[in-house]
Amino acid sequence: MKIAVLGTGMVGQALAGRLAELGHEVTVGTRDVAATLSRSEPDAMGNPPYSTWATSHPDVRLAPFAEAAAGAELLVNATSGHVSLATLQSAGADNLAGKILLDIANPLDFSQGFPPTLFVKDTDSLAEQLQAAFPDLKVVKALNTLTAALMVNPRQLADGDHTVFVAGNDADAKKTVTDLLESFGHRDVIDLGDLTAARGTEMLLPIWLRLMGTLNTPMFNIKVVR
Amino acid sequence: MKIAVLGTGMVGQALAGRLAELGHEVTVGTRDVAATLSRSEPDAMGNPPYSTWATSHPDVRLAPFAEAAAGAELLVNATSGHVSLATLQSAGADNLAGKILLDIANPLDFSQGFPPTLFVKDTDSLAEQLQAAFPDLKVVKALNTLTAALMVNPRQLADGDHTVFVAGNDADAKKTVTDLLESFGHRDVIDLGDLTAARGTEMLLPIWLRLMGTLNTPMFNIKVVR
Repeated sequence: MKIAVLGTGMVGQALAGRLAELGHEVTVGTRDVAATLSRSEPDAMGNPPYSTWATSHPDVRLAPFAEAAAGAELLVNATSGHVSLATLQSAGADNLAGKILLDIANPLDFSQGFPPTLFVKDTDSLAEQLQAAFPDLKVVKALNTLTAALMVNPRQLADGDHTVFVAGNDADAKKTVTDLLESFGHRDVIDLGDLTAARGTEMLLPIWLRLMGTLNTPMFNIKVVR
Repeated sequence: MKIAVLGTGMVGQALAGRLAELGHEVTVGTRDVAATLSRSEPDAMGNPPYSTWATSHPDVRLAPFAEAAAGAELLVNATSGHVSLATLQSAGADNLAGKILLDIANPLDFSQGFPPTLFVKDTDSLAEQLQAAFPDLKVVKALNTLTAALMVNPRQLADGDHTVFVAGNDADAKKTVTDLLESFGHRDVIDLGDLTAARGTEMLLPIWLRLMGTLNTPMFNIKVVR
């Protein structure tokens, strides 16, 4: 599949690398190609800059958001939540229409420090805001409830015996995303129904952040035992 | 231990019955004893009235909130979230001082129908509001993340291979509650730290409610796989 991964950070790199490994034709989208390639310092989390990652992934193209989106059948929103809407606006409504958006972003507000709060919650979600802004996009919320390494290689933990969720308004789009998650190695993908379920998965972030602190690692996930 | 369970609904009954079965001296607290005993209809969820439950639990006393609290070493908040504060006020600060409160309530707002929203979230929690109102009470948030039957008999599901959480500001109080949870059969009790972690566990409710609908049963729980 032709896939555009919007976002050059840790999540974008993890998704782009894994998708390319699985044989997809991947373009990473960024606001400014030259600026992205010129950064030589690790990010705030200590992750290596995109240019370093790119040298070991020559099969992954880097392009401006609009160009990446134009050529793709499926898009991955791997941006920070506070720039997700602006990112899709840069990509352009015409380049999004009729396509699937796998939305991984979380509406985290770090303006008051750590832990972040949520800038949308309970009666709305970031995923629904993106869907409302781009009605012709098929938004599927998924993978926002676990760390990037486990999003794309879940079998690293308990041989994949844990759960991820999909939520969205288009059944075919959810099927496509579910197939993609299963190709990553996910064994338990629960379809929570329409996109309003994204409220619940985005509101998992506060306990997820707390657990990361308590367990002293992001390498965990929840399993829905039933 | 002498334990007061505040609340006569499904959660109160489940806790009181299990605690009595384990040999604790249990008093259930209610606003109006005569009114509670006079109700003969099932509640909105179809649970039998307290009077029916009471006939099979003759060892559990029923008393007004203040009397129940006065005689107890540990209290269980098994009321609906919207009446929790008023319930503790009825119990009386003097009857609460120095005691442990196992707070199971969730800040659910059903005023707009189902699914409920949360009337406190993200930057505050019901547990913290109770703690702020009664500084001499040792509030421990726990068990608000699973259905009543599994709170007290977790081995019914996957032989107890799933997770519950405790959060609170008093280490000894958390130890007492953790011991109680383990006596119920819980095998994995994660201490999330101070009471601000209740924000995270209360914000689990939206996905919990969604999962209940998707799975068509409340008999599930999450396991933190690590």
